[in-house]
This record gives sequence, C-alpha cells and structure tokens, in this order.
Amino acid sequence: MILILNVNAISVKNTLKPKLPKPIIIVNFKNYLEATGQKAVELAQKAEKANKETGVCIAVAPQFSDIVRVAESVEIPVFAQHIDPVMPGAFTGHVLAESVKDAGAYGTLINHSERQLKLADIDATIRRANGKDLISCVCTSNPQLSAAVAYLNPDIISIEPPELIGTGIAVSKAQPETVTNTIKLVRKVNDEAIILCGAGISHGEDVSVALKLGTQGVLVASGIVKAKDPYIILRDFADSTRK
Amino acid sequence: MILILNVNAISVKNTLKPKLPKPIIIVNFKNYLEATGQKAVELAQKAEKANKETGVCIAVAPQFSDIVRVAESVEIPVFAQHIDPVMPGAFTGHVLAESVKDAGAYGTLINHSERQLKLADIDATIRRANGKDLISCVCTSNPQLSAAVAYLNPDIISIEPPELIGTGIAVSKAQPETVTNTIKLVRKVNDEAIILCGAGISHGEDVSVALKLGTQGVLVASGIVKAKDPYIILRDFADSTRK
Amino acid sequence: MILILNVNAISVKNTLKPKLPKPIIIVNFKNYLEATGQKAVELAQKAEKANKETGVCIAVAPQFSDIVRVAESVEIPVFAQHIDPVMPGAFTGHVLAESVKDAGAYGTLINHSERQLKLADIDATIRRANGKDLISCVCTSNPQLSAAVAYLNPDIISIEPPELIGTGIAVSKAQPETVTNTIKLVRKVNDEAIILCGAGISHGEDVSVALKLGTQGVLVASGIVKAKDPYIILRDFADSTRK
Amino acid sequence: MILILNVNAISVKNTLKPKLPKPIIIVNFKNYLEATGQKAVELAQKAEKANKETGVCIAVAPQFSDIVRVAESVEIPVFAQHIDPVMPGAFTGHVLAESVKDAGAYGTLINHSERQLKLADIDATIRRANGKDLISCVCTSNPQLSAAVAYLNPDIISIEPPELIGTGIAVSKAQPETVTNTIKLVRKVNDEAIILCGAGISHGEDVSVALKLGTQGVLVASGIVKAKDPYIILRDFADSTRK
Repeated sequence: MILILNVNAISVKNTLKPKLPKPIIIVNFKNYLEATGQKAVELAQKAEKANKETGVCIAVAPQFSDIVRVAESVEIPVFAQHIDPVMPGAFTGHVLAESVKDAGAYGTLINHSERQLKLADIDATIRRANGKDLISCVCTSNPQLSAAVAYLNPDIISIEPPELIGTGIAVSKAQPETVTNTIKLVRKVNDEAIILCGAGISHGEDVSVALKLGTQGVLVASGIVKAKDPYIILRDFADSTRK
Repeated sequence: MILILNVNAISVKNTLKPKLPKPIIIVNFKNYLEATGQKAVELAQKAEKANKETGVCIAVAPQFSDIVRVAESVEIPVFAQHIDPVMPGAFTGHVLAESVKDAGAYGTLINHSERQLKLADIDATIRRANGKDLISCVCTSNPQLSAAVAYLNPDIISIEPPELIGTGIAVSKAQPETVTNTIKLVRKVNDEAIILCGAGISHGEDVSVALKLGTQGVLVASGIVKAKDPYIILRDFADSTRK
Repeated sequence: MILILNVNAISVKNTLKPKLPKPIIIVNFKNYLEATGQKAVELAQKAEKANKETGVCIAVAPQFSDIVRVAESVEIPVFAQHIDPVMPGAFTGHVLAESVKDAGAYGTLINHSERQLKLADIDATIRRANGKDLISCVCTSNPQLSAAVAYLNPDIISIEPPELIGTGIAVSKAQPETVTNTIKLVRKVNDEAIILCGAGISHGEDVSVALKLGTQGVLVASGIVKAKDPYIILRDFADSTRK
Repeated sequence: MILILNVNAISVKNTLKPKLPKPIIIVNFKNYLEATGQKAVELAQKAEKANKETGVCIAVAPQFSDIVRVAESVEIPVFAQHIDPVMPGAFTGHVLAESVKDAGAYGTLINHSERQLKLADIDATIRRANGKDLISCVCTSNPQLSAAVAYLNPDIISIEPPELIGTGIAVSKAQPETVTNTIKLVRKVNDEAIILCGAGISHGEDVSVALKLGTQGVLVASGIVKAKDPYIILRDFADSTRK
C-alpha cells in the first residue's frame, strides 16, 4: 500500500511512468450501475481497503466521467476503460490521453473485447498512453493475439477468452492452457510485459490458480462488481495471491 | 441566468427534462487542450460570466472526464459530447447516459460529424437521453438529414456542414440557404425542436445572422476555444443574439 | 415478366432508372451457402420461373461475387446487398456503385440490419445509387426510422424489425401495427417510395397479409433460401400477392 | 508462367493451398474506374501478357463483382481485396470466403490501410482464408505491426506506409529502413511468410530496390492502374525483378 502511494506520487508529480507492483488485480467497472457515480467511489474505496489490509495492488477502472471522483477518493491506481488514438484537436466525443491523465488516471485498458480496436489503432493508442505516462493494459482473446500484441510493447497484456466473460467460469481453471500458451508465446518476444488473465474470475481460488499458471494477476469485472459484498470477494482475491 | 439556475435545479432535483431557454449558444470543447482539465473549468467559468452578464443561455460541452469538475464549478448547462446507445451492463469503454447524468450533464451532443452514429443508433441514443432526462442535441450535415432526424424527436437539431467546420467561414453567412432549408424542412414535421446552426461561427455577426435566418442559436467550437480571449468572443456572441 | 424484360432493357441500355413493377418480392441471399456460387444462379432461376409463370416481379439479391453470373442467367432484377458511399478511387475492399451496376445489378439494398450505415452515409449511398440509376432499397427497423429515411427519397423502404429476422414469425402477422404505422408515417412525407416489409416471412399468407396492410411487397431471405423446395415457396408467395 | 498455370490448377481442383511463386507482384485494382468491369478484365490480361513473357508471377486484385470475369479470362492468380471474418449465414452485405473462392479467387488482401480490421478480426479472417485454401496477404503500416501480424501466420505480409500510398514516392527508396526493419522483425518469428512492400511503387527501379532490400515482391496499385500504358509498366516491373 505504501508502494501504491509512492507509485501515485511519482505518476502525478514527475509524469514518469512508474513500475507496476506485482501481482496486480484490476477491477473493470464496465458500465454497470453498481459501479457508476457515487457507487464507483464506494467500490473503489472497498478495493482500497482490501489493498491497505493486504498490501496487494488493486486497481480500478471506472467509467470516464467517474475517473475524477474516484481518483480524488482513493490512492490505488485508477485506469480508464479505453482511450482513443487521437491527438488533441477536433475529435468531438473521443477520449483523449491527456484528458484521462489530467483526471487522475494512472493507466488505461485498450482493446477490451467489448471495445475492440483496429490493429494500427492499438499500436497508436499504446504510443499515446506512453506519451502521457499512462500504463497500457491491452486485452486480447487468444495466445496468438497476445503474442502479436507483445510486439507493440504494452505494459500489461490481459488474455480474456470472450466466451467466458461474465460466465463465472474462470479462464484459469477452464482453459489453463490458454493462459500458459499466452505466457509462453509472449515471453518469446517480450520479457517485461505484465501478463494477466481474465474472464469468469469469481473465486479466490481462480486467482491463486492464475498466479500458479504464471500470470502476474487478474482482470476482473462482474465477479466483483456484481458480488453481494464486493469487499469480501476483493479481500479473498487479494489473500489468494499469496496462496 | 436565474433562468439557468432554475433549469439546473429542475434537472437535478426532479429529473424532469426542463424546457431549454432560447436563444442558446453551445460551446463544444472537442478534444482541444485549451479546454481540457482545469482549462475546461476556466473556459466554462468564462461562459458563465458572459451568461450572467447578458442572461443569454450559454452551454458547454467538455470531455467526459471533465464533466464532473465543470458541472461542479458553474451553473450553466453542461453537455456531454456523445453518449452510446447502451443500457447499463457489460459495455467496457462506452459512455452511459446514467453516468454522464450523474456527473452533472444536462444534455448530450449526438452524431457530431466527428462522432457519427448509425441511423438506428441515433434513434436509440435519443431514447436513452430521454429516459434519463438528458437534452438531446443531434448534429446533421444537410437539410434533408435534419428533416430525417426531426422525425426522431430530439430536443435540438444542429445543422453543421462538415466542410465549414473549423474554417472560420460561418455557415450562417456562407450557406444561408442551408440554414433556411433546414428550418423549412424540419418545421414541416416538428414544431418543437430547437434548431441551431454551426460550423465556422467566429464573429458576433455570424450569430446575429444565424438568428435572423430563423435559428434559435448556434453550436460553436474553435471560434471560442481557440480564441485569444474566449470571454470577449463569448460576450460578443451573447450580445449579438439581441441585435 | 415481359414487364421485367423491358425494365432490364431500359436499365442497361438507357441507364435511366426504370419504374419498379408492384407488387415486388425481393429475395435476399445473404451469405447463405445455399445461395452461393452456382447455387445462387439456380435459386435465381427458380425465382425467374415463378416470375414467368405468375407475372409477379421477383428480384434477387446475391453476394457481390455472384452478381455477374446471376445477372447473366436470369432476366429478373438483381440487387446488390450493399454498396459503399464512395466515389471511384482509392477505396480498397469497398463496393462501388459503378462496379455492381456494370456487373448487371438493377438496384441495391442499403442499411440492412446486418450491414447498418451511419445516417449521413445512407444519404450519400442513396445519391450514389441514383447517380448510377440503381434502385435503392433502404431497410429500417421501426416506423420512425422509416419516416426519417423517407425524407432521403429512396426508391424502396423496407421495414424489418430485427428481432423477427430469421424467426419464421412474420412481421405482417406478429406486428401489423409496425407495418401500418410505417406506411402512415412514410406517406406523410413521401408519396412515391415503394414500401415493403420483411422479417419472418415464410408462408404465402404472410405475403397476402403484408399486401392487405398496405405494403407493395416483401423482403424475404431464409424463408426462401433455407426452404426445402424454394420454388414451391416462391410460387406460393407470388400467387399470394393476388389473394 | 507454367508455374502459375499449375498453381491455379492445384488451387481449383484439389482445394489445397498452393505454394506461391516468388517474386510476386500483386496489382490492387482498388475502386478505380480504370480497373472496373471490362477494364478490369483488360488490365488483368495485360498483367497476364507480362507474366507469360517474363515468367514472373503477377497477381491481380479486382473488385468483388469483377472476380468471376477476371478469373475466367486469365490464368494468373486473382485476389479479393477483402473478405469478412464471417461464416456462411445471415450476414447481408458481407464478403464470404466461400463466395470469392467459388468465384475463382486464389487469395485475398486483408487489412489494407483503406479497409482496416480489428486485431481479432485479422486473426479470424486469416483462419477463414486458410479454411478455404485462400492465400492470405495481410497489409500493415509499420515494422512492429508487421511482426505482430507475423504471429498470426498469414501467407504474405505487405508493409505499406500509408503516408506514401498513391504518392509515386516509393517506399523502397524513400523508407528503405522501414522495409529492412520489417524483414528483420518478421523473420525473428516467422520464416515462411512472403514479405512484400508497397506504397508509391511506380518505376521498375522501385521494384528492383525492393527485392534487393530483401522482399519477395511488391504490392502496387495506382502506379499500374493509373499508368498511361499499364502493360509497359507491368513489363518493366517484371523485368526489374531480375536486375
């Protein structure tokens, strides 16, 4: 937790991109009402509580309009859910790297399966994130695509088979070979990127299995956001990173 | 200005969609750095100053991440630049009506020429705005499209020939017949929608001509955002609505 | 059928857009294997047989690569399933009006629910079709959108509620008010456009009900393409236009 | 040229994907009127003439509607300009692998800079091409993206910096390091893919330089299609592959 504090401090003051702590749990708030507006702030505070109690890095990815309020309320890293590969200018309705950075974002998801980008735009978006010292987390749907993306040097690659997203059937347990193949292929060309897995992660055991397979964390959404008591699950996830 | 206050009060408290004052000047901040973050707040404050001094309704459309800060800082109406036609749920990276409403938005631009939508999505997005009592301002590029959109019952229709956007050549002076044809065609099927024009509006005279042609206001961007002294231009625009 | 012959003759020789006979049945081949390549030709020949026997206009909409072979094999009107709003030039992988016209197309579907377009692109695509004397058939999903499109002056408007497409539950029987509202709204602004309905049309009775509701024909796909004996259904549809 | 004949024979009869001869010149007809309809056939015949005289493999990529006529008229390989990552079914207006294969295509361009795809769709489209024994030629805009694509195992990778397309300034001469870096990065992960370069190729020397840099051919469009005498340029290009 001290670590995270320092990370944020560096991020804001020096605008140098900080090194991410591992393991990391990123909670994607999607467009869920349970994580919109004041509820986004409250969910982020629960994540921060679990972070402070365990020291495990938990990041949150609220909607664009909620970034400011969440970033002002917690010290854990805040991610945008998407940015566009545009420079400042006449791009009405687009999401500018400068804007989410200024709002307090520490990084951004890119190419989530619900917000996919053209190949050249993934490259351009990673560059835009780099240019504003935003941590880039690119989502992919299979090992080959993960390796392809590894060549574009994002900070984080998250493998998420779309068919498992929102199902409660964890990728780490249902498709362990998808995870291990991703790690194997990515590591051939990229030693540094953090590798996460996501889709269906809903129990602490899903998290510990993911780490045992060789990932450095998980990307999770409904498993937390839709939980009856998100704090309990967050705490369970954080604790499970040590099992 | 009292009017605007009341408008906002109704909007927030009753979640009933308020009647818009006329004329109205909407300032689209696009993704300009001159209107990002703290600068978005400052520009909105200049717009509010011109509004308070003249009583003319001036609305601002900042980037998604800036809506909260702008809406907390001023009493004039705040528009989102875009919302997506999605319901709450698993829509990572999309812009939810509920989210921008909660952040303080009073309305939203829809189908700006830099963020165009499929026809059925314009319809669905207007419905989503209506469902959350957000004023819908649909942008179109020619009179026929304006009439087409008029059938979908948005609150505001703004005609903006894309070839003039950002040129400083005002639609109201360079293509008056585009404006008058829009009004004629729209009024055949829709008595209520406010009709604005935009593209190239940079002088007070462009505004007064627009109103004389029969519009109820203007949608403007670079003419204000890129101005050396935006307040002076805003004040000039507001004053020109009475000429 | 003589009528159709003349129609095609005019279309090809004079490049004047011909008047469409009514009623009209358009068979959309989609990307079904049952209507690809040689099977597209054979299905079109069955449609032509039913046309010759009954005099009822039956048009077919094969895939782009099949237009030439189908148009060379039959005298009934051939539609493209889509064209892009581009002019001749550097538009790799797009579908040019000139190209499908040259291949023998008589018209084109536009904005099918499986290939939706931005609003401004629907307008531009209708203009491109007009410029090359191609009959434009714009698909819409509800009465308001149909009225909106009516302002853009397509030759044909086809109302197809997406939730019924491919279900075998006919729009004409399950949602008659969708059809009659479409006609009512469209006719307020457009006297000339042919109005079709589609989605779930699978029995002759669905066709006769559609005509009784006030349409001038139907747009059909799986009901014919996936039928055990498409000729029998086509003949039944054609006969039903007189009941 | 005998080689090409055999290649086509294998392609059509066995539906086994043939080995491509090297070097290869692919002529993209785009949506140019100079290469539409009968003119597409004539241009393909000029390419075939240059092929027969020199033995150098020249392939042509006409518009979808022209594939049948071109493939029936020449023995050189014919490419589609794009296919969609869809299976046979309800995909109105899409381009099905089965359809272009049946029309006589030997391969397809994928992700041309004028028809870019989402990352996951590039992968799915290559698989669709493989499934129908179509040669896949994926276009990319920089060396990193080429390496990323190399992981997806297309048959051909063509590097084309978009800023040079249509300029007459050849990539091979203006940006030789773009070409050599592409080769270096691709070969780290993929020994088999043919590597082409494109953009601005307009003189025989541009071709010979491209080969000397280590490519196995070029992808060319306006340099041939817009030439006063395309045959002369085609012949010059073919001859230049031996210099």
